[in-house]
Amino acid sequence: MTTALTPPAALHNEAVQLDTADPLAPLRTRFLLPPDVVYLDGNSLGPLPAAVPPALEDVLHRQWGTALIGSWNTAGWWEAPLRVGDTIGALIGAAPGQTIAGDSTSVQLFTALDAAATLRPDRPLLVTDPGHFPTDRYLTHAVARRRGLQVHHVSPADLPRFLATEGHRTAVVSYAPVDFRTGELYSMRALTRAAHAAGALALWDLCHAAGALPLDVDALGVDLAVGCGYKFLSGGPGAPAFLYVAHRHHDRLDTPLPGWTGHADPFALARHYTPAPGIARARIGTPPILSLLALEAALTAFDGVDLNQVRAKSLSLTGFFLRCTDELLTPLGFTPVTPADPARRGSQVTLRHPHARGLATALAEHGVIADMRAPDLLRFGVNALYTSHQDLLTAALALRDLTRNAAYDPAPPATGPVT
Amino acid sequence: MTTALTPPAALHNEAVQLDTADPLAPLRTRFLLPPDVVYLDGNSLGPLPAAVPPALEDVLHRQWGTALIGSWNTAGWWEAPLRVGDTIGALIGAAPGQTIAGDSTSVQLFTALDAAATLRPDRPLLVTDPGHFPTDRYLTHAVARRRGLQVHHVSPADLPRFLATEGHRTAVVSYAPVDFRTGELYSMRALTRAAHAAGALALWDLCHAAGALPLDVDALGVDLAVGCGYKFLSGGPGAPAFLYVAHRHHDRLDTPLPGWTGHADPFALARHYTPAPGIARARIGTPPILSLLALEAALTAFDGVDLNQVRAKSLSLTGFFLRCTDELLTPLGFTPVTPADPARRGSQVTLRHPHARGLATALAEHGVIADMRAPDLLRFGVNALYTSHQDLLTAALALRDLTRNAAYDPAPPATGPVT
Repeated sequence: MTTALTPPAALHNEAVQLDTADPLAPLRTRFLLPPDVVYLDGNSLGPLPAAVPPALEDVLHRQWGTALIGSWNTAGWWEAPLRVGDTIGALIGAAPGQTIAGDSTSVQLFTALDAAATLRPDRPLLVTDPGHFPTDRYLTHAVARRRGLQVHHVSPADLPRFLATEGHRTAVVSYAPVDFRTGELYSMRALTRAAHAAGALALWDLCHAAGALPLDVDALGVDLAVGCGYKFLSGGPGAPAFLYVAHRHHDRLDTPLPGWTGHADPFALARHYTPAPGIARARIGTPPILSLLALEAALTAFDGVDLNQVRAKSLSLTGFFLRCTDELLTPLGFTPVTPADPARRGSQVTLRHPHARGLATALAEHGVIADMRAPDLLRFGVNALYTSHQDLLTAALALRDLTRNAAYDPAPPATGPVT
Repeated sequence: MTTALTPPAALHNEAVQLDTADPLAPLRTRFLLPPDVVYLDGNSLGPLPAAVPPALEDVLHRQWGTALIGSWNTAGWWEAPLRVGDTIGALIGAAPGQTIAGDSTSVQLFTALDAAATLRPDRPLLVTDPGHFPTDRYLTHAVARRRGLQVHHVSPADLPRFLATEGHRTAVVSYAPVDFRTGELYSMRALTRAAHAAGALALWDLCHAAGALPLDVDALGVDLAVGCGYKFLSGGPGAPAFLYVAHRHHDRLDTPLPGWTGHADPFALARHYTPAPGIARARIGTPPILSLLALEAALTAFDGVDLNQVRAKSLSLTGFFLRCTDELLTPLGFTPVTPADPARRGSQVTLRHPHARGLATALAEHGVIADMRAPDLLRFGVNALYTSHQDLLTAALALRDLTRNAAYDPAPPATGPVT
């Protein structure tokens, strides 16, 4: 595919200019990206931050290997869920003491949904997006089934209208600001307001938003939020998730899994459960310290970084990729499904093509790692901390050439995890 | 404390002879124990296995850093919860396909208790040990409260009598084979039989048993079991836990947290939850791969090890320590609370002393790491894979000398995690 390497001059010049002027470009060295790979799947699994290997070396040999059990105190293991939670809190606009790191997003969602239903005991409806990520939908139904509640599926666009009539029966609305398939960005402000106007709680799944754009859960009055540690936070495969609960709900926060670490006096090993004050009551069991401290090290990639700059660069990247698409890919049958309006765009571009699966595989074989969502969506995630405009032109050109040359399997077997 | 270093000759000779004849002695090199430390707290946190650092190095740099998202398939990340589960299954007497690794013990307990109640829907009682570890008690009450069930606390000794009258109303009995405070070993066979005779299910918490003695959950007909990865399995701080569910319950296993990874076709991202066949339906969210693969590497310390030999050596170690106690410590006010009968002894020795907390702190300062349980219990855990009889004599002598010289704080502040 030697012709692949000759980019249209105008796009090439634009990419070089944008990258040269990029104030965040130096952050790329905070990640150990493999050479000769364009990595556009950081919205599934962020790459390895440079800070993680030395941090884990210390955790293994000094903290675990040498100080042993004492590290629960001396190395700060015990406080890690709260400390890492606060670090994530700073990225989502949460003042300290409201965010906790640990468990998986699914477990945190269960806690959040169940606790929300307890906070609105006389309201029988849980409302969520019909296009929400599966685990959100499954757990909403699971909580509803066991509590005798009902689930209503309402698209974000229809939510205000739905709440106008059913809001008084709605306990919680559970949405994501970024659609994981299309990359469409919804207004957290508008949907949170609509929920509150109805007396309902607003629960946000920030998996595709935390670390990708500025968030302001406190200022928006968000009630609860969850998110994962392994996408834009680059905390490693299956990195612990997080749970945010606004201060005003803490005293009445009744979690469904009262594990011993959430006890007010955990080391007394008391017979009866007394929840800890504050967000600490959302702790469950002993946290996976290696994964949790890897996440903590990964979060140092955000040290000194202005999320408004991250957002500006992310929009520059996705905007540039949409221009590449217009010029190089639309003529070949690709249709962008991510909104062109920057105000409605998360940190990814999704293209529709009937051979999305085969193309994603072929792209990976040519060093461009994106992913797909069945049946026909190709996702290109950008992360302003390490993605360049030239990366995106390389990807667009590779995709153009693979398509033009039909150099891919049009019907490969379905396989592989997507998260 | 120079006099501390002169052991009674007979005990010293016995320790040397036992260690010299120990067929498991070479296994100690599978652990990176710090020099000059006697580590008797492996029943709280196992030490660092030598296999872990190189394994994590590979996970970080090759799997995550270089192969990136592809490692979910190519490095076997996706299958890891089932694969590691089966490895643990082999240590507890479970045939493959019934054990899964992931989440914390607390989360697995919640799943097990709730699923057990669903399997016995017409029975209103959950029965558990009043001396059970706090998280077991808290979660039993949490499940009962949300399902409108009742909890009865019945000591292991009283369980057969209780079940004779209340067994027909009992959904599940939830016990640990080893009392985490006293080290007393109960008969899993007898209690499981008593539960089954009443038509109830038997749920075992194996935290203090898995890896410490041979277990045979399949042969005993155990219904469900949970356990942690960080005590005798030495999987690292907060290592993922495990859940065992007997084959015969899989088809009707209705888990309370149906996360997307437990779906029959997780990558289809289907709208409705269809549980995977087998134990895979107990998967919840994306597992913490770094911690999970550290646990997997740690489990190689059991490669080729006969758990009957482990049990024999463990009893030799605890028996020897009880003899040291008789000779050196009982005269100074220590009372063993662990049964002298080997058939009733787990893999620890617990001594009662009114200054347990101060003595544990002073011991640690002298390189002997044990732990305490409030208010007055000192725990000495042995692990046949790395503990020697000479270690135990060193510990007993240090304890004797600290006590004799009153070289400890009799009333130190309560602090520090115990797990």
